[in-house]
Amino acid sequence: MASGAQRVVLITGCSSGIGLRIAVLLAKDEQRRYHVIATMRNLQKKKELVEAAGEALGNTLTLQALDVCSDDSVKQCISSVKDRHIDILINNAGVGLLGPLESISVERMKTVFDTNFFGTVRMIKEVMPDMKKRRAGHIIVMSSVMGMQGKRVDTRGRQRTLGSLFLYSQELKAGEVENVGSRQWEFTLLLRQRVVFNDIYAASKFAIEGFCESMAVQLLKFNVKMSLIEPGPVHTEFEAKMMDELAEMEFSGADQDTVRYFKDVYVPSSCDIFEAMGQTPEYIAKCTQKVIESRSPRFRNLTNSLYTPIVAMKYADETGGLSVHAFYNLLFNFGSLMHVAMAVLKCLTCSCLRRRTVSPD
Amino acid sequence: MASGAQRVVLITGCSSGIGLRIAVLLAKDEQRRYHVIATMRNLQKKKELVEAAGEALGNTLTLQALDVCSDDSVKQCISSVKDRHIDILINNAGVGLLGPLESISVERMKTVFDTNFFGTVRMIKEVMPDMKKRRAGHIIVMSSVMGMQGKRVDTRGRQRTLGSLFLYSQELKAGEVENVGSRQWEFTLLLRQRVVFNDIYAASKFAIEGFCESMAVQLLKFNVKMSLIEPGPVHTEFEAKMMDELAEMEFSGADQDTVRYFKDVYVPSSCDIFEAMGQTPEYIAKCTQKVIESRSPRFRNLTNSLYTPIVAMKYADETGGLSVHAFYNLLFNFGSLMHVAMAVLKCLTCSCLRRRTVSPD
Repeated sequence: MASGAQRVVLITGCSSGIGLRIAVLLAKDEQRRYHVIATMRNLQKKKELVEAAGEALGNTLTLQALDVCSDDSVKQCISSVKDRHIDILINNAGVGLLGPLESISVERMKTVFDTNFFGTVRMIKEVMPDMKKRRAGHIIVMSSVMGMQGKRVDTRGRQRTLGSLFLYSQELKAGEVENVGSRQWEFTLLLRQRVVFNDIYAASKFAIEGFCESMAVQLLKFNVKMSLIEPGPVHTEFEAKMMDELAEMEFSGADQDTVRYFKDVYVPSSCDIFEAMGQTPEYIAKCTQKVIESRSPRFRNLTNSLYTPIVAMKYADETGGLSVHAFYNLLFNFGSLMHVAMAVLKCLTCSCLRRRTVSPD
Repeated sequence: MASGAQRVVLITGCSSGIGLRIAVLLAKDEQRRYHVIATMRNLQKKKELVEAAGEALGNTLTLQALDVCSDDSVKQCISSVKDRHIDILINNAGVGLLGPLESISVERMKTVFDTNFFGTVRMIKEVMPDMKKRRAGHIIVMSSVMGMQGKRVDTRGRQRTLGSLFLYSQELKAGEVENVGSRQWEFTLLLRQRVVFNDIYAASKFAIEGFCESMAVQLLKFNVKMSLIEPGPVHTEFEAKMMDELAEMEFSGADQDTVRYFKDVYVPSSCDIFEAMGQTPEYIAKCTQKVIESRSPRFRNLTNSLYTPIVAMKYADETGGLSVHAFYNLLFNFGSLMHVAMAVLKCLTCSCLRRRTVSPD
């Protein structure tokens, strides 16, 4: 039970990755300023969180089952909170989807939206009315993470064959793919910008942005704050198992050229980007804490300064042509020089852009 | 049947509004450069199109039933096209949704996404493989239109009580709300920017943008072009009937303050914006033709120069705070001076911004 002075923080998707790290970081706050309600769809996956939380569990941290894809589960969870009082809602649960559009069914796409977009909408819809009544509260929306797994099979320092993609196979139940990050590399690829073969994930991410931009204005009238945390690629641990899955995948419905671009160009390039830009979940957790504790938090919070030139490129050209062509060239024409391009991108990041990101320091 | 020299154009949502106007404009091309396949969910609503098409019907224009919410209907329609050869696909079908989030069920929200987002995805998924094979084609995505109806009940020149919102009642079948624009004002409100009470529609619009930005890079590799047409508010004819519906609506689930802001602040402000910025479907159709006929079409095509300062404001500040606060002030603090603010916005539109829009002239 939270003491009166503590701020109640409810977090979704805490079985692993960023959600787990935020929960642990806030629950272990030395001044005990937070009471954390850490939620996950399946409490059988609590082991990693329980171990990381240590003595905080049962004191400043409580566990709760919550399926963001179920209206009933969301209602039940929020109603179980004392006085339905939540000071800070952190929407973190999300799943990924990769692959050529032709090989993915619309039904499969809808399950991604049900977690990444409607999951967040369900939570906000349930928590917001009480926040509005109290004229207080802070809603944090974490960019969903896209599960990606890789393995270095080339030891000569290049990442050409590194990637093993976690492309959810059709038979994989939705319940098994939530927060896949625990033992894989999590990868929020090229946030807020077009990425080939990442169409549906990118779309769910954009949908959340549009929704939050719209809500933020209204919530301001009720003194409720809203902040987006926008990480770049985030890596957790590594697992080789999925490598074999990618090799076996046939992407039925897609033509040979498309599959070749996907396997031979996109995947290695993604891995280069990851290598150049990856941050840890702990780092994202610290950024999130900084946003929570800010007196006047920003609406939009990029965590990765390497991304700012990409964002700037997008904003510099309203026709969209500049960045579409730039990425086209990066991906298809630079070929194996993609990692050089990423290095150039690093250099492009001048201090005036860097200061626009949030960092825990 | 299209002659060999004609470009085959398939358009969704042609029963009214923008879709109808594009179909008629291209079918009546003096040089007969196009063969138009005009589609709509329900062919019983073909009357307006048939009348507008005149002698073009059966010559340069054919009618076809197509429900973008059905995988089967999409497959069937595309397979019925000779050699599945479509040169230009124009995704126009879309529906709107307005009102406080608390009063809208998640199921209702999903139906909006099923038309606006997944409807477009289904079409592209079905048409794209053939375009990729041929290394030719142009995919146009029209910003979905949000149905809105209004009536001026204040004749003193102010638009305070003008708006009658077309908020789809729960019992209204999805089949009945497609392309509501025929007898109402169509209203794509504050495109690409946050708008209060327009959360879900805005989100579906953003989702399409994210999807298209992602697809555009890949398609470029196959010489297939993609263009977004981004109109501001578009008005067609006027109908009073819906006025009564708005007055009767109770928005159950939303608190009184929220409903009051919606009815007394948002609706009149929206009408002010509409009055200041509205364009006709014919104008949008001409803009679309210009994009189609461009040798190197832009990816992003704003049709309304009055929007560019709004877009510029968003891009000028990466934290998002500037535009969130600007809109907050516009909406809640300026109150009845909203229309003045809109006039100021007009003046802000300098020529350097105006040239970034597409116009038929």
